[in-house]
Amino acid sequence: MNEWYAEIITVGNEILSGRTVNTNASHIARRLVSIGFTIRRITVVMDELDEIKQAFIESLSRKPKLIVSTGGLGPTYDDKTSEGLSLAINRPLELNQKALQMLIEKYSRLGIQLTEERRKMALMPQGSIPVENETGIAPGIYINYQGIEILVTPGVPREMENVLENFLSRYLSNRPNKKYYEENFIIKGVMESALAPYVKQLVKKYDLYIKTHPKGKELDNPLLEVQIAGSSENEEEIKKKVKNCKKELMEIGKQLGGSIQEG
Amino acid sequence: MNEWYAEIITVGNEILSGRTVNTNASHIARRLVSIGFTIRRITVVMDELDEIKQAFIESLSRKPKLIVSTGGLGPTYDDKTSEGLSLAINRPLELNQKALQMLIEKYSRLGIQLTEERRKMALMPQGSIPVENETGIAPGIYINYQGIEILVTPGVPREMENVLENFLSRYLSNRPNKKYYEENFIIKGVMESALAPYVKQLVKKYDLYIKTHPKGKELDNPLLEVQIAGSSENEEEIKKKVKNCKKELMEIGKQLGGSIQEG
Repeated sequence: MNEWYAEIITVGNEILSGRTVNTNASHIARRLVSIGFTIRRITVVMDELDEIKQAFIESLSRKPKLIVSTGGLGPTYDDKTSEGLSLAINRPLELNQKALQMLIEKYSRLGIQLTEERRKMALMPQGSIPVENETGIAPGIYINYQGIEILVTPGVPREMENVLENFLSRYLSNRPNKKYYEENFIIKGVMESALAPYVKQLVKKYDLYIKTHPKGKELDNPLLEVQIAGSSENEEEIKKKVKNCKKELMEIGKQLGGSIQEG
Repeated sequence: MNEWYAEIITVGNEILSGRTVNTNASHIARRLVSIGFTIRRITVVMDELDEIKQAFIESLSRKPKLIVSTGGLGPTYDDKTSEGLSLAINRPLELNQKALQMLIEKYSRLGIQLTEERRKMALMPQGSIPVENETGIAPGIYINYQGIEILVTPGVPREMENVLENFLSRYLSNRPNKKYYEENFIIKGVMESALAPYVKQLVKKYDLYIKTHPKGKELDNPLLEVQIAGSSENEEEIKKKVKNCKKELMEIGKQLGGSIQEG
């Protein structure tokens, strides 16, 4: 198998009932494609232990290089992804000391007690590495199982995105043998919601990963960090593509009244 | 198993690459939930014969009452859902005479030749019943396999929606034993895009299926048929819920400058 296959598992009744559209899976897919993976399958399952376990077992049996899950990671009784994974790979849940440390620091900074429910977020399959979640509480879970890398992320979009970025920059070791190229810049004075339809168009046009990270205040003083990324066997080609897309998006930013700052 | 389980299979590389968000699956889920089904799983697979076949085999093995697929139904070489299903259920593809008749009528009305590629859309697994597609060309495929009902719909959203509605009103025989209740009305003078954010809120609030069908011209003279539906074991409860939701949406329609007509 030459392809760098990855799979995505979404855990959540709200997707299955149609109440929530699965934008998390799209985000993960686009991001993984941008670094050279091919997504072979997206599976959405219920918040039930046996369903989650089964989804991981089936996904592992197809031997992808990477599995990323989203949802079911948190303090409530219906957050069962960690336990489901532990059953699937037959590694007992244990209190991960590094994850516990992360929780203790977060809660003590907030002046909140570490209850039993909250401590639950440090329960991970044996051999897990907790992945930093800077926009929320529950750390992600990274585990290498028989050469297949598995990342478990929360279901809240900004937390999933943060954990995914931390994983990609600090932990992922199976990297597709393609040239990855990324550019960043800043747009000041344009609301993310105003830029959004143009970003959508450019994503379709260039087939790249484009992400706007809002850093200022959406209404008063918007400041967007823009990230454009992609990969290809041809280094020159992907550089040119990312640069063209960047140029076009900068023009749009200016037309919308923004000022540009090279990142 | 007391639950009325259904499953959804989405066929399409554009979902797996993250270019397109899987709104089709959300629509199908919400619609099936509104008549009493519980969606157990959503599976997204590539436009490849073996992947499609495998997805159907796995889904059938979980013995849901209903499987609805979307995508991969059309005249091009990469439309492989019909063939994938035929392999999964081991029933040969054959030229369905009723489907062929539908295609002949459509194309002759349009004054277009029925080529080999177009005739392909009448190739269905033995024993299939073609389902009317009034907004496009390719008919849906309905098949009852060992008591499990299977519906194959196109991937274009308006065609998927039309085929699904035709299937639900004319063919579906395994019906959940719940009380289904639906109300319809018309809003004149409000654009679908203006109403959309409120519909989204009400869907969350009431957990009902709400669909706006635009019938006029979006810009000049918008006319929306609104459908609100849901089901419950308690007939009074679901009636009340649908009526309350309808009342609230009518109010919003008026506030946006529209006039209401009872359907």
